[in-house]
Amino acid sequence: MIRVGIVGATGYTALELLKILLRHPEVEITKLTSRDVSCPTLAEVHPGLRERLELDFCPFEIDAFAQDVDFAFCCLPHAASAEIVNQILDRGIKVVDFSADYRLNDVATFESWYQVMHPDAGRVGKVPYGIPELFRDKIKSAQLVANPGCFPSSALLPLAPLIQDELIELSPIIVDSKTGVSGAGRKPNLKFHFPECNESVAAYGGGKHRHMPEIDQILNRFTGFEVSTVFTPHLIPMDRGILSTIYVKTKPGVTVAELQTELAKFYAREPFVRLTEQSPTTKDVAYTNFCDISITKCRGMTVIISALDNLIKGASGAAVQNFNLMSGFLETQALM
Amino acid sequence: MIRVGIVGATGYTALELLKILLRHPEVEITKLTSRDVSCPTLAEVHPGLRERLELDFCPFEIDAFAQDVDFAFCCLPHAASAEIVNQILDRGIKVVDFSADYRLNDVATFESWYQVMHPDAGRVGKVPYGIPELFRDKIKSAQLVANPGCFPSSALLPLAPLIQDELIELSPIIVDSKTGVSGAGRKPNLKFHFPECNESVAAYGGGKHRHMPEIDQILNRFTGFEVSTVFTPHLIPMDRGILSTIYVKTKPGVTVAELQTELAKFYAREPFVRLTEQSPTTKDVAYTNFCDISITKCRGMTVIISALDNLIKGASGAAVQNFNLMSGFLETQALM
Amino acid sequence: MIRVGIVGATGYTALELLKILLRHPEVEITKLTSRDVSCPTLAEVHPGLRERLELDFCPFEIDAFAQDVDFAFCCLPHAASAEIVNQILDRGIKVVDFSADYRLNDVATFESWYQVMHPDAGRVGKVPYGIPELFRDKIKSAQLVANPGCFPSSALLPLAPLIQDELIELSPIIVDSKTGVSGAGRKPNLKFHFPECNESVAAYGGGKHRHMPEIDQILNRFTGFEVSTVFTPHLIPMDRGILSTIYVKTKPGVTVAELQTELAKFYAREPFVRLTEQSPTTKDVAYTNFCDISITKCRGMTVIISALDNLIKGASGAAVQNFNLMSGFLETQALM
Amino acid sequence: MIRVGIVGATGYTALELLKILLRHPEVEITKLTSRDVSCPTLAEVHPGLRERLELDFCPFEIDAFAQDVDFAFCCLPHAASAEIVNQILDRGIKVVDFSADYRLNDVATFESWYQVMHPDAGRVGKVPYGIPELFRDKIKSAQLVANPGCFPSSALLPLAPLIQDELIELSPIIVDSKTGVSGAGRKPNLKFHFPECNESVAAYGGGKHRHMPEIDQILNRFTGFEVSTVFTPHLIPMDRGILSTIYVKTKPGVTVAELQTELAKFYAREPFVRLTEQSPTTKDVAYTNFCDISITKCRGMTVIISALDNLIKGASGAAVQNFNLMSGFLETQALM
Repeated sequence: MIRVGIVGATGYTALELLKILLRHPEVEITKLTSRDVSCPTLAEVHPGLRERLELDFCPFEIDAFAQDVDFAFCCLPHAASAEIVNQILDRGIKVVDFSADYRLNDVATFESWYQVMHPDAGRVGKVPYGIPELFRDKIKSAQLVANPGCFPSSALLPLAPLIQDELIELSPIIVDSKTGVSGAGRKPNLKFHFPECNESVAAYGGGKHRHMPEIDQILNRFTGFEVSTVFTPHLIPMDRGILSTIYVKTKPGVTVAELQTELAKFYAREPFVRLTEQSPTTKDVAYTNFCDISITKCRGMTVIISALDNLIKGASGAAVQNFNLMSGFLETQALM
Repeated sequence: MIRVGIVGATGYTALELLKILLRHPEVEITKLTSRDVSCPTLAEVHPGLRERLELDFCPFEIDAFAQDVDFAFCCLPHAASAEIVNQILDRGIKVVDFSADYRLNDVATFESWYQVMHPDAGRVGKVPYGIPELFRDKIKSAQLVANPGCFPSSALLPLAPLIQDELIELSPIIVDSKTGVSGAGRKPNLKFHFPECNESVAAYGGGKHRHMPEIDQILNRFTGFEVSTVFTPHLIPMDRGILSTIYVKTKPGVTVAELQTELAKFYAREPFVRLTEQSPTTKDVAYTNFCDISITKCRGMTVIISALDNLIKGASGAAVQNFNLMSGFLETQALM
Repeated sequence: MIRVGIVGATGYTALELLKILLRHPEVEITKLTSRDVSCPTLAEVHPGLRERLELDFCPFEIDAFAQDVDFAFCCLPHAASAEIVNQILDRGIKVVDFSADYRLNDVATFESWYQVMHPDAGRVGKVPYGIPELFRDKIKSAQLVANPGCFPSSALLPLAPLIQDELIELSPIIVDSKTGVSGAGRKPNLKFHFPECNESVAAYGGGKHRHMPEIDQILNRFTGFEVSTVFTPHLIPMDRGILSTIYVKTKPGVTVAELQTELAKFYAREPFVRLTEQSPTTKDVAYTNFCDISITKCRGMTVIISALDNLIKGASGAAVQNFNLMSGFLETQALM
Repeated sequence: MIRVGIVGATGYTALELLKILLRHPEVEITKLTSRDVSCPTLAEVHPGLRERLELDFCPFEIDAFAQDVDFAFCCLPHAASAEIVNQILDRGIKVVDFSADYRLNDVATFESWYQVMHPDAGRVGKVPYGIPELFRDKIKSAQLVANPGCFPSSALLPLAPLIQDELIELSPIIVDSKTGVSGAGRKPNLKFHFPECNESVAAYGGGKHRHMPEIDQILNRFTGFEVSTVFTPHLIPMDRGILSTIYVKTKPGVTVAELQTELAKFYAREPFVRLTEQSPTTKDVAYTNFCDISITKCRGMTVIISALDNLIKGASGAAVQNFNLMSGFLETQALM
């Protein structure tokens, strides 16, 4: 039985994480922290979890935390996260960090895109990126794993093997993503007020979204090639799900069938990645840890479509997959 | 050509009002005020109105306002509204007020339900309630009209004639209402954050909603009878529309057919109320000024269902209908 | 390990049932039948289950079925179901039947509301109704259980104990229910075509819904009292969830606190029924086997609100709960 | 007063057309035809139009039709439409045809993409394409206008002027479109059944959608250049609206500012096309005849985003705009 603590457990990813962990036979949830000093009850914050867990929120305090926790999930915003992860690691506790703090390859890129000094700069670039399908071995032996961004997960799973095997051109790589509103987090904001985003579609952050350098750098880390993706996220009036429509060119002479074969081989023994003939839908992967991928040709371009649940395979499901690996459990435990 | 000013023009009812008035051949919109001192442009607040009106927001200032405006719509929150309506009326300008400030029959009920001192108590109880189908003559000659609440409109239109003609019992009168989220206004709030209220239904304010005394008092004003309705509003994951399912008992010997006949007669010459055989749907009245009503029997109870668009017949459409009456225009002008 | 077969496994309840059973450690799914003679693959019918189960659809044939199956779930429409359940029972196989065929107390009521001859009339009235919270002992020892209707589940859970203990009047009992569209099944129909029911609310089948006599008869079976509920279902633009707002009168002298205490006591040891202070929301119970219930007073009436997921606690979750009881497993197995 | 007849008036585009025409001061609607031989009433087919128009459906019969109609809108499916348009034109009546029958430049392309013999092949390639912003002069003097497809409208409005002025490369031109479900028509189908497409996003018809050659051919007709767009439509869980995200490359040395200036100049006097700095949203153009367009740069690519209402600017609004031009009315009549 592993005693698990969740830092910053009031948002949507923490809620999904709690639901998964409550089904995990090897887990006891022992700490939930919040920066809300009023110490709300679990039922006040997550009414759907009433009677499922006898544990209320407390402020984060490292000594108390370290005493009760063997493994930590940190769901704080960027910069705030590294400050605390830092302390937890010092106590020898393993951590999966949901923030962007440890995902990138270098501090300069982080500081330029996030416009804040990195509070734990020394670790940046040395932390395994938490997509087990790409970095399983490093994750297994890590004390800290950087849980991946939701959009990057949807782009990296199909692109990484194809670029690594030099089957597609490095430019253009256009990632046109569509996401449900839970991806924007739980903090009220006019943009995500129901009557504003319901019955509407719009692009946001075009050309400036922080997941763009993340996609580039992890592709680089995995393949060694420099890429510069064109990434446009769109907000869709639904709770959850990401569909990424990716436009690339195959290398001369490479067919779509070869791309399909490559991905099929690469993911043959992976329980959570499925190649589909039909275009995937976000509904088919909603509330699951699956990522579905299809590849077709349209005139000169190859169109790759991937679908995943932004809160599960794009966040909390991936986190538990990483946790299982780091703890020596069956990788699919609590995730099927 | 009437010069129209809108006070507090940043919310959803003001947006709908603007859209209707832009189609009105006798209206020139000359003032838009906001309590936001940054004086935002129209396109910043209502991007859908870009290029449709050359007018930006300004703070409310009575002299400037009175100089440019012949007729005012006031879309401020309760209490804030009466403070300004007061000043506008003093300049001889006609006003339709969207707030609850002038709807009720007495100050005591207002102050007990709204928990605030009424800033213009002297007028309360003397202002016509802005449902033309019930109070047309008073509205025609008024300087000030209290635009009705959205839920009350859906309850009063079917109930008022039936109670007046003593066709139904005064108790129980159960009004179970379902509303789209725009009814909650435009201010961000966790309850109306997309991922919270999408894919969910819940009752809110049960037993304590301020539209409950409004229904009672206007029924009393119209019929002379004292009633005490049981009102439960529910939030529905859609933009707009109210469906009220109303459970009443007919007086002994009265049939459902007689209720239907009475309503058909009462609304025979009304352009905006339609009696339907099928249960009405909010979709059929969305973006229109119609209220659709059906009556059926279920065992001992009579089930009356009414549907309207909370932002049109429940707010801005009714306001223009009142404006048309107060200004001597065709009542349906800009509303069909 | 129990070998499970599902008859008529192409619809939404079967899909949810499959998802739950795939998490059940004691279950092997061995048969999926469909009336579609083309024998579609699992991925064609339920693409979300790709790679999760190696089993395609076959037509129902009793000998082949009986050979591979120890326990059957039957998801066929009414009348069609009893014809097949009949055969399965003859082979000594236990069955949970999702149809209405075995729910009512007498054949006459069934035939009058469903307008069809009952193909297995002899069993009607003798089959336990599958709400374990009300009929656990009978379910445990049954060979056949009638899985409850979704609306009835939401009405019976709060009403049955209160009526049994004579805390509320038998009339009026008004059940105003709101359901997501999955409750209408998977067969395309203009009423459930996305652009027809999205952004709309309407009542349907008012006064004539077949779940009305089911509520009455099961209340009668559990309490001995005759009741005649007034039931109005409404269609809500969301996938899943039922919220029932129930209006009743307490017996003279009985307080709302006493009702709350009674329900709290009745459900104290039940894992799937939660009493809540706040009004329940369908979102908090979506994708779970919980039913949340609140009770408040509004003027002369008592307002009881219950929320459940129509496909889980209202169908497939209840079915697995019954299966667990009938098979001697932990009742919550695969359901938390 | 022009007497207008609508052929095939049971679908969503006909409903929107009727709503617009009911506001048109110069129009009398005199005929509604349907292939449904039961001659349904208007209220049965479009309950929202109850009491707004005293006219029921009749089968199409050319003599009766020609007697009552000065101008026809034809809303039939492809191939079926040309058979009837043919007859109407012979009577000297002007027609706006909503189908694809007269949109393309040549019969061979039509027959290869629509897999049917063209019933009026002689006219193909000679009929003005009904985007007034591009083909106004030809439309003004035409007897027949081919109303544009909804996706093509969203792609052609931004692309045509930029290609004509040789500001962007002819390849790649990637059009990634997102549409509400009303675009799929009113015929029930599992794909558009509410619980299938709600809370889901998916691509459909990728590489094979019939609007792809339409975009190519009209771009060619307007600019003289041969283009071959890569078009991927996606289905979004909302009623209406199309957002097209278009990825192109500028010619060497051309800046995004120059593209913006070109479009601003081209559309300077157009009432229905608006250039926006912010990314457009479908909500801001819903229920209007506007098309909003933005242009930004992202790394090597230029990202053009256009938004329109598929049923208005993408269908019935454009049709009335064409009707106004063909009839000598103010182009914006009934459309603001």
